[in-house]
Amino acid sequence: MPQKVRIALDAMGGDHGPSVVVPGAALALAQHPDSTFILFGDQGRIGPLLAAHPRLKAACRLVHTDVAVRMDDKPSQALRNGRWKSSMWLAIDAVKKGEADVAVSAGNTGALMAMAKFNLRMLSGIERPAIAALWPTMKGTCIVLDLGASIGADAEQLVDMAVMGSAMARVLHQIDRPSVGLLNIGVEEVKGLEAVREAGRILRENPLPHIDYIGFVEGDDIGRGKADVVVTEGFAGNIALKTAEGTARQFADYLRGAISQSIWSKIGYLLARPAFRMLRDKMDPNKSNGGVFLGLNGVVIKSHGGTDSEGFAAAIDVGYNMVHYELLAKIGETIHRHAGVSAADRAIGGAVS
Amino acid sequence: MPQKVRIALDAMGGDHGPSVVVPGAALALAQHPDSTFILFGDQGRIGPLLAAHPRLKAACRLVHTDVAVRMDDKPSQALRNGRWKSSMWLAIDAVKKGEADVAVSAGNTGALMAMAKFNLRMLSGIERPAIAALWPTMKGTCIVLDLGASIGADAEQLVDMAVMGSAMARVLHQIDRPSVGLLNIGVEEVKGLEAVREAGRILRENPLPHIDYIGFVEGDDIGRGKADVVVTEGFAGNIALKTAEGTARQFADYLRGAISQSIWSKIGYLLARPAFRMLRDKMDPNKSNGGVFLGLNGVVIKSHGGTDSEGFAAAIDVGYNMVHYELLAKIGETIHRHAGVSAADRAIGGAVS
Repeated sequence: MPQKVRIALDAMGGDHGPSVVVPGAALALAQHPDSTFILFGDQGRIGPLLAAHPRLKAACRLVHTDVAVRMDDKPSQALRNGRWKSSMWLAIDAVKKGEADVAVSAGNTGALMAMAKFNLRMLSGIERPAIAALWPTMKGTCIVLDLGASIGADAEQLVDMAVMGSAMARVLHQIDRPSVGLLNIGVEEVKGLEAVREAGRILRENPLPHIDYIGFVEGDDIGRGKADVVVTEGFAGNIALKTAEGTARQFADYLRGAISQSIWSKIGYLLARPAFRMLRDKMDPNKSNGGVFLGLNGVVIKSHGGTDSEGFAAAIDVGYNMVHYELLAKIGETIHRHAGVSAADRAIGGAVS
Repeated sequence: MPQKVRIALDAMGGDHGPSVVVPGAALALAQHPDSTFILFGDQGRIGPLLAAHPRLKAACRLVHTDVAVRMDDKPSQALRNGRWKSSMWLAIDAVKKGEADVAVSAGNTGALMAMAKFNLRMLSGIERPAIAALWPTMKGTCIVLDLGASIGADAEQLVDMAVMGSAMARVLHQIDRPSVGLLNIGVEEVKGLEAVREAGRILRENPLPHIDYIGFVEGDDIGRGKADVVVTEGFAGNIALKTAEGTARQFADYLRGAISQSIWSKIGYLLARPAFRMLRDKMDPNKSNGGVFLGLNGVVIKSHGGTDSEGFAAAIDVGYNMVHYELLAKIGETIHRHAGVSAADRAIGGAVS
């Protein structure tokens, strides 16, 4: 376990840049006093904000750069204009150079993933990265991946995701053997994607020490908390996530509309306000803010672009835990075993066919 | 426009069978007095229920059968045991024989689709069926398809779905040129499925008279009401639908939990009760109950298995409108034009390559 967790921040990322990142870092430091920070970005904007947070100022180093990746830059543009010098690149590069343990950015997802892949490269044994997120459920929180790093996945790639997701659940939720479900559809006639069924077969027939494979789960099982980890390819995963966010927003909107219908419902709302505050907290995407890039040689956390300082602190918190509980080592541990299983499995397949 | 709409009902389908179907039909008749019904199922169970609804009894014919498809029958089992004789088969067969204009069943989706395909066959110009549903949005209701009839889709199949979905929107929502969006993911780095992009190109370059193609939409745009029709392949569509249902249920659950926290929030709830009733109505899947099987030589409506009589009446209402406003003719009309466009399009592709 590292002595201190060293956190590199892209201070210019997100819709609000340093005005959210700096107070967010201050909140995270209060929560984890054993953290140190490196902030990358515009000194002229960051300096005055740091002055208001003397404890953070003492625990951080500020590295100036003029270049920032814009929220609407395409990954190729971002790489062309921002490589070697943007605040986003430098934060990732600090992880690469071993100066930081984790990089956190609220900048644009495509650019962050492109830079992280380009600079950090893949973990040995993993073919390609995945984006994982925390999903509030009726029982607590589950981990869902992939949320859009790649489109489509073969059976081995789905199994890799099960391995990475379960390592993340061990680290964040301290579950030794997380339950893992493969997202599928329940209509009987179409029996689900071939790759999903094949991944299910591999997971069922080759039990891994840190994976409790529970079979297929459907879209409504995610929120029900049926599995600690839900695995799917990036197209369906992204659509599931966005649809759930949209539905939650829709519900909140209806609720607001319903309450403003009459004076009685407004009074009722005032009386029930603490309850509504609890509800908002439960459904607030900020509370489980932080997409985690898995499969890379380093930990990179993507915060929502439009988040506030509390949300950014939550993303840092995820990064802190990843490092503190040694995510990469835990992925490596299972990948290693899985590689053995999988090679054997392939050999059997080869012998039979 | 047909004189009367003749509706065939699988009276044994769903979790509750005749005890929901019969009162549901009575409600539907009250709404559309120009309907007649044929009920297929167990006379011993249906007869006494009909006695309580004399108006329905006068407007319906009861055809006895002992055989019912079970909710957990596989499509192959259902076909083997239920063909020619089950209440589900007979309801579809009434449409095939021209004795009814539409069949409605709350029975299992896979079996219903298998029987409908086997018996009714595909509409000329359509390769395979799709399941469409009504989705409540912030602006009203949109149509989403495919919700799981098939997994995966090529560009032409997605365009077919755009045609069928827009015909359904014309029929149900009286929009002459519905806006149509293709469901895609917004992460820049991965630019979306090849088939989705190709379908977008076809729809953009070959404008169809009854389709206002608005481009790609994301998961959260569905509930936002960005498009009148959202098109996707069945795997992602089914996962989106189930995830949205799960999230709505989760929200309602949180709300209940929040309200029961204190005496004040309970009093608040009582005062705001009409508002909550409105909210429940908005989010109630029963209110937009009725999956529509599109692409077949006949109209078949699948109601939720666990629905109540009000929900079953809503499914009948969807079927009624489909017939009353001549869905099949409207699909045929656009398919016809689309086939012309598409052949030209293929020819151009052929000439260039």
